[in-house]
Amino acid sequence: MSRRTTADVPGLVAKARSGDARSVARLISLVEDASPLLREVMALLAPLAGGAHVVGITGSPGVGKSTSTNALVGALRRQGKRVGVLAVDPSSPFSGGALLGDRIRMQDHALDPEVYIRSMASRGHLGGLSWAAPQALRVLDAAGCDVILVETVGVGQSEVEIASMADTTLVLLAPGMGDGIQAAKAGILEIGDLYVINKADRDGADTVRRELRGMLALGERPEGSWNQPILKTVAMRDEGVDEVVEAIDAHLAHLRDSGELARRRALRAREEIEAIAVTSLRERWGDVHARTELDVLAEQVVAGTTDPYAAADELLATYAE
Amino acid sequence: MSRRTTADVPGLVAKARSGDARSVARLISLVEDASPLLREVMALLAPLAGGAHVVGITGSPGVGKSTSTNALVGALRRQGKRVGVLAVDPSSPFSGGALLGDRIRMQDHALDPEVYIRSMASRGHLGGLSWAAPQALRVLDAAGCDVILVETVGVGQSEVEIASMADTTLVLLAPGMGDGIQAAKAGILEIGDLYVINKADRDGADTVRRELRGMLALGERPEGSWNQPILKTVAMRDEGVDEVVEAIDAHLAHLRDSGELARRRALRAREEIEAIAVTSLRERWGDVHARTELDVLAEQVVAGTTDPYAAADELLATYAE
Repeated sequence: MSRRTTADVPGLVAKARSGDARSVARLISLVEDASPLLREVMALLAPLAGGAHVVGITGSPGVGKSTSTNALVGALRRQGKRVGVLAVDPSSPFSGGALLGDRIRMQDHALDPEVYIRSMASRGHLGGLSWAAPQALRVLDAAGCDVILVETVGVGQSEVEIASMADTTLVLLAPGMGDGIQAAKAGILEIGDLYVINKADRDGADTVRRELRGMLALGERPEGSWNQPILKTVAMRDEGVDEVVEAIDAHLAHLRDSGELARRRALRAREEIEAIAVTSLRERWGDVHARTELDVLAEQVVAGTTDPYAAADELLATYAE
Repeated sequence: MSRRTTADVPGLVAKARSGDARSVARLISLVEDASPLLREVMALLAPLAGGAHVVGITGSPGVGKSTSTNALVGALRRQGKRVGVLAVDPSSPFSGGALLGDRIRMQDHALDPEVYIRSMASRGHLGGLSWAAPQALRVLDAAGCDVILVETVGVGQSEVEIASMADTTLVLLAPGMGDGIQAAKAGILEIGDLYVINKADRDGADTVRRELRGMLALGERPEGSWNQPILKTVAMRDEGVDEVVEAIDAHLAHLRDSGELARRRALRAREEIEAIAVTSLRERWGDVHARTELDVLAEQVVAGTTDPYAAADELLATYAE
């Protein structure tokens, strides 16, 4: 992963736009590295993004997320679509390249020039999604991807965060994993726009479907809202995958027609702006090399001469000057 | 849990100070409810806090956290110390009272006027520790507790956050739970100031100790740094618990002598101030009922007429005016 800080950003953006995979990769690296060029990259990408349908793919380990993603890429390619894949691994401290891993995971598509595959580690607070993930999405979007699949590698809370980045969230289940209960526990039931029971050739697929249907029926839905479909696949043998793509398309159409797409994306942009603003403030407050106003206030709190709320007011007042 | 917003705060603080458990409980409720009186409470507590030794207790489910906490309270009471217990449950959406739960969990001490027991749910972002937890600590501290035990009920990442609030972090393990590996995975090894192998009468206690010792030896430590002790207890039978209290005291003495106590507490105060300031800013930005500057910026980002970084700059500039 290069850490050079000079680059012909407009040239890279133009080449990425025309389908040059190396330029796409280079732009994502600039974003991930929080390069000084980050702002230039983002400013140039802004008018180009917004065309991609972002589909989040979540599910417990063992349900076949990688295989399903791979099969979905194949189905989307059969429709002639340009596809981006962003695999986010919250458990990995390493980001960027992961090229070998990408090639192994997605070997069917690694050489297809219309498929961009990228792994990212999560570097966010408490194992949350990387702050860089939304920016990487924007790169893939601006590069002309029709669909971007965002897949969590690993487990946990970041699944809910994936959903917050996606237009459409696909929740994968499999028979015989007690998934129904697990999904309910993890709050996954609320986030799914469609549910796919993979490994549907195994015993218990209908039980999972029935349980899931029952749980979904419990939730109240306002009139005209999306009716979450439950589909079955055997991703390994490519069975049922085209139907999943159809359902994904149908959901996008629903989002467009209902105005929900604009609402979701505005919410996402809000969160993104807010997170960047907060990070920027923290950097100003928290320069660990200098003795900052915050350090002085912290010592006063420890000494009991002020309290943390009064100190926070003072910190904000200092900043506003 | 009362939500009245009038109260004689100075009177409550004075009564809490003199050992009135109901006033302590009332002050913590004011803090938890983010009552309009919160700032008054915190300002009055500030000069009174700082005397308590905050001990965090973490460990996987099943190692005997509650039993150990209960036994530690007993040992501390034998020394005549006033003890606070803050049990934080990150999985519970409910906070406050939980009185019945408290009484059952700590029935040995529920009637002791020198022991304050409080359960708190975590309401933080993504299951993190409640923002109210540091403030509740401050109430117990100002109420004259010599030692405050902070225990996580449940599992997960909040353990690391508990450590960030504590002067001393005690990591509990037990034989036969594959704890060594689990601890290493969870990053617990780096946060422990002392390790206690509970249920030490069971097979495998020495194996756990050996594995742990081996893993601790791998970490590099600067000269003069604290040598994390590994102790054994059978908390259920009160065995080895006085030795744990001795080790906790020894760690506090080390923190004082090395200047580390002041450093840790200043860091904690920094994080607290910063979190309050960020929360306050988010509230100003994010009024969901009004159409805010942030909403306008978010729509511009969606439309591609600006990018999130430029939007964040604008948001901050608006605020600074």
